Amino acid sequence: MAFSEFRSLDEKSLIEYIKAEPALSSKLGSNLDDIKIKEVGDGNLNFVYIVVALGGSFVIKQALPYIRCIGESWPMTKERAYFEALALREHGRFSPEHVPEVYHFDRTMSLIGMRYLEPPHIILRKGLIAGTEYPLLTEHISEYMARTLYFTSLLYRSTTEHKRAVAEFCGNVELCRLTEQVVFSDPYKVSQYNRCTSPYLDRDAEAVREDNVLKLEVAELKSKFCERSQALIHGDLHTGSVMVTHESTQVIDPEFAFYGPMGFDIGAFLGNLILAFFAQDGHANQVNDRKTYKEWILRTIEETWNLFHKKFIALWDEHKDGSGEAYLPAIYNNPELQRLVQKKFMEDLFHDTLGFGAAKMIRRIVGVAHVEDFESITDASKRAECERRALEMAKLLLKERRKFQAITEVVLAIRKLQ
Amino acid sequence: MAFSEFRSLDEKSLIEYIKAEPALSSKLGSNLDDIKIKEVGDGNLNFVYIVVALGGSFVIKQALPYIRCIGESWPMTKERAYFEALALREHGRFSPEHVPEVYHFDRTMSLIGMRYLEPPHIILRKGLIAGTEYPLLTEHISEYMARTLYFTSLLYRSTTEHKRAVAEFCGNVELCRLTEQVVFSDPYKVSQYNRCTSPYLDRDAEAVREDNVLKLEVAELKSKFCERSQALIHGDLHTGSVMVTHESTQVIDPEFAFYGPMGFDIGAFLGNLILAFFAQDGHANQVNDRKTYKEWILRTIEETWNLFHKKFIALWDEHKDGSGEAYLPAIYNNPELQRLVQKKFMEDLFHDTLGFGAAKMIRRIVGVAHVEDFESITDASKRAECERRALEMAKLLLKERRKFQAITEVVLAIRKLQ
Ligand SMILES: Nc1ncnc2c1ncn2[C@@H]1O[C@H](COP(=O)(O)OP(=O)(O)O)[C@@H](O)[C@H]1O
Ligand SMILES: Nc1ncnc2c1ncn2[C@@H]1O[C@H](COP(=O)(O)OP(=O)(O)O)[C@@H](O)[C@H]1O
Ligand SMILES: [Mg+2]
Ligand SMILES: [Mg+2]
Ligand SMILES: [Mg+2]
Ligand SMILES: [Mg+2]
Ligand SMILES: [Mg+2]
Repeated sequence: MAFSEFRSLDEKSLIEYIKAEPALSSKLGSNLDDIKIKEVGDGNLNFVYIVVALGGSFVIKQALPYIRCIGESWPMTKERAYFEALALREHGRFSPEHVPEVYHFDRTMSLIGMRYLEPPHIILRKGLIAGTEYPLLTEHISEYMARTLYFTSLLYRSTTEHKRAVAEFCGNVELCRLTEQVVFSDPYKVSQYNRCTSPYLDRDAEAVREDNVLKLEVAELKSKFCERSQALIHGDLHTGSVMVTHESTQVIDPEFAFYGPMGFDIGAFLGNLILAFFAQDGHANQVNDRKTYKEWILRTIEETWNLFHKKFIALWDEHKDGSGEAYLPAIYNNPELQRLVQKKFMEDLFHDTLGFGAAKMIRRIVGVAHVEDFESITDASKRAECERRALEMAKLLLKERRKFQAITEVVLAIRKLQ
Repeated sequence: MAFSEFRSLDEKSLIEYIKAEPALSSKLGSNLDDIKIKEVGDGNLNFVYIVVALGGSFVIKQALPYIRCIGESWPMTKERAYFEALALREHGRFSPEHVPEVYHFDRTMSLIGMRYLEPPHIILRKGLIAGTEYPLLTEHISEYMARTLYFTSLLYRSTTEHKRAVAEFCGNVELCRLTEQVVFSDPYKVSQYNRCTSPYLDRDAEAVREDNVLKLEVAELKSKFCERSQALIHGDLHTGSVMVTHESTQVIDPEFAFYGPMGFDIGAFLGNLILAFFAQDGHANQVNDRKTYKEWILRTIEETWNLFHKKFIALWDEHKDGSGEAYLPAIYNNPELQRLVQKKFMEDLFHDTLGFGAAKMIRRIVGVAHVEDFESITDASKRAECERRALEMAKLLLKERRKFQAITEVVLAIRKLQ
């Protein structure tokens, strides 16, 4: 067999691969002569090929044993593709409308074949930079988060199912360690990988490294990230892992998936919306001052949490007499108590969300991987201004998160700091 | 081979087994004709044989596929012996002076051969009922807890080592579920297994089942128990899992071991000391009013926490530049910050400890498995009085644990309630 051991593919060898793999070739119809393949991996880690023929299409994603944007000097297990495929399938089971279908997975080749999210799907981050409103985004993403997190938690599952799944995803440890490093560690120390808009933010980055309270708080979050197996989280749910049209919202790229704290996913999404908000002034021009769009982002932040809250509680209520083992119906058997436990659960989750969201913001400003929202602001001093406000917001959220009682208060704080 | 598949042994077949197993027979010297075997399993789950010959001795513990004290109607995986052996070895590595050496493990037979803790070793609980003071107990047990918990946590280990071990111990799920049921669930609902000193405590047991705040708090603890893989905990560290003499303290029976919250172990031990305290009035007589002994128990509670605290922090300081990945030295690089993170860590651990300790107390009064401390008080109305005070103490601790700032305050509250 030509592909009985791992090799990294390119446009040419991929054609051979597809022809040898019925699960894929059958998707393209009968005529395989006019297959068009284009590598589009704008991501940081992997290679992504769009494969289109007359009769059909799909996307191929291959993981190589290193981090693409850095190169072979930063090795990274290609087994991440296994966990990505597993998470796509598991999350797809619970939220099929918002996760691309997996057609094929080849563990030896670290290769996933999945639905091609055809144009006009674009990466949400790019839409946010362009100033595009997505009327169904909050409805969809809250649905995705509520369902994937609820159904993989002990609210829905037995301990037996839970521990089996937790053990399996412990195997994705290399990706967890990457997050530990780039989110919870490097921004708070001197690291060769850190970058910031220099010289403007040099002092701000230094201040982060010298802020004892910040370091105390980030340690608590890191412990939760490492120790708390609350649900199967996506693990990298920023606005670059979501593809959108006006009608569709699709979550891709869960290669960092493992059993971790729910707030890490919700926080990643909200934190990246807050980054998008603070970047808007850098995108404003005489044609569009972005004021209306900034309001839309704030509404999106608020609605995402509120809809998530509503849907999550609705799932909980719907299945409260089911087989989930966290709150047995025989114990949590009166409406007042049910309300009490849900309130406490959601308060804790809200504070986790703000903390993780803030940590994800900070690392995008003073850590290794920045976001296009800011990077596309060419005037460095203007970019630094935007980034500084976002950084201040993140520090406030991380330190004072327990004082926020509702998402409206967060939005208010964002308004004040803008 | 006679023992190539599982069979439950008795005194007679055990002799054959030992003769066929050099790792065991070699411990007994050259003369195997006068082997004396006695089954002493006073425990709830397993069979324990003391094996003595002229040239040596050991203990054999075998798990059968059900819970001994209930019978075959309550099946329980015999694989628990595997996790017990694993934990004995792992904890023994870090605290060899306080864990019996494992001589032999046979997975097929669910059988452990270990050091015989010869007389005058007795189960600590029996010593507490007899009113015996153990001058080295706090020094030893705090050492055991500090070392086993510290060295199996992310304070000492890398994420890679941690996740590998967490995954392995996920396999001990049946024992975790048993704890979930008997500690965190059954006492808070009507269950065929629950017992209490009836009719005296009927109303008290009912009050537990109707206490919304208690149920709210116990849910939080249960979540931590199910989701937080903080360290390799013993999982059943009550005073019946500790054997003592005046010079020696030995921890046995870690079949419930898994990666869970540290406070569950510390709480189990302290909670059972508090039970022992409240049982003393039931053991008092004209010869001994137990007043001095009660003071010794209170000192033991206080010193156990304080010494644990001291030793744990000392280990942390000693290894702070080591390979533990929770607090990287490059980040937590100044003495003030080091003090801050340790303070926060120990405060959280203290509150976990009180919560879990309280939950373990409650289940011993209104749940399935009671403690000899109370059971040995023959006058039921006197027993109920003792139990009621302990139950009140436990409820206070569970609900108000976050208000306690120091172990002295806990001791004060115990004094008030006695
Ligand atoms: N199913 C898909 N349909 C269309 N485009 C996709 C699909 N999956 C990935 N892409 C494109 O490839 C890019 C990189 O994919 P991603 O899964 O994020 O890889 P990485 O792990 O390297 O970040 C995405 O930003 C998107 O533009
Ligand atoms: N190593 C040992 N040396 C001496 N006695 C032991 C030893 N291990 C167990 N025992 C005795 O056997 C009893 C039951 O052992 P234990 O491990 O607690 O079993 P179980 O899991 O059934 O509770 C203990 O209470 C103790 O009296
Ligand atoms: Mg990506
Ligand atoms: Mg939908
Ligand atoms: Mg990725
Ligand atoms: Mg025992
Ligand atoms: Mg036992």
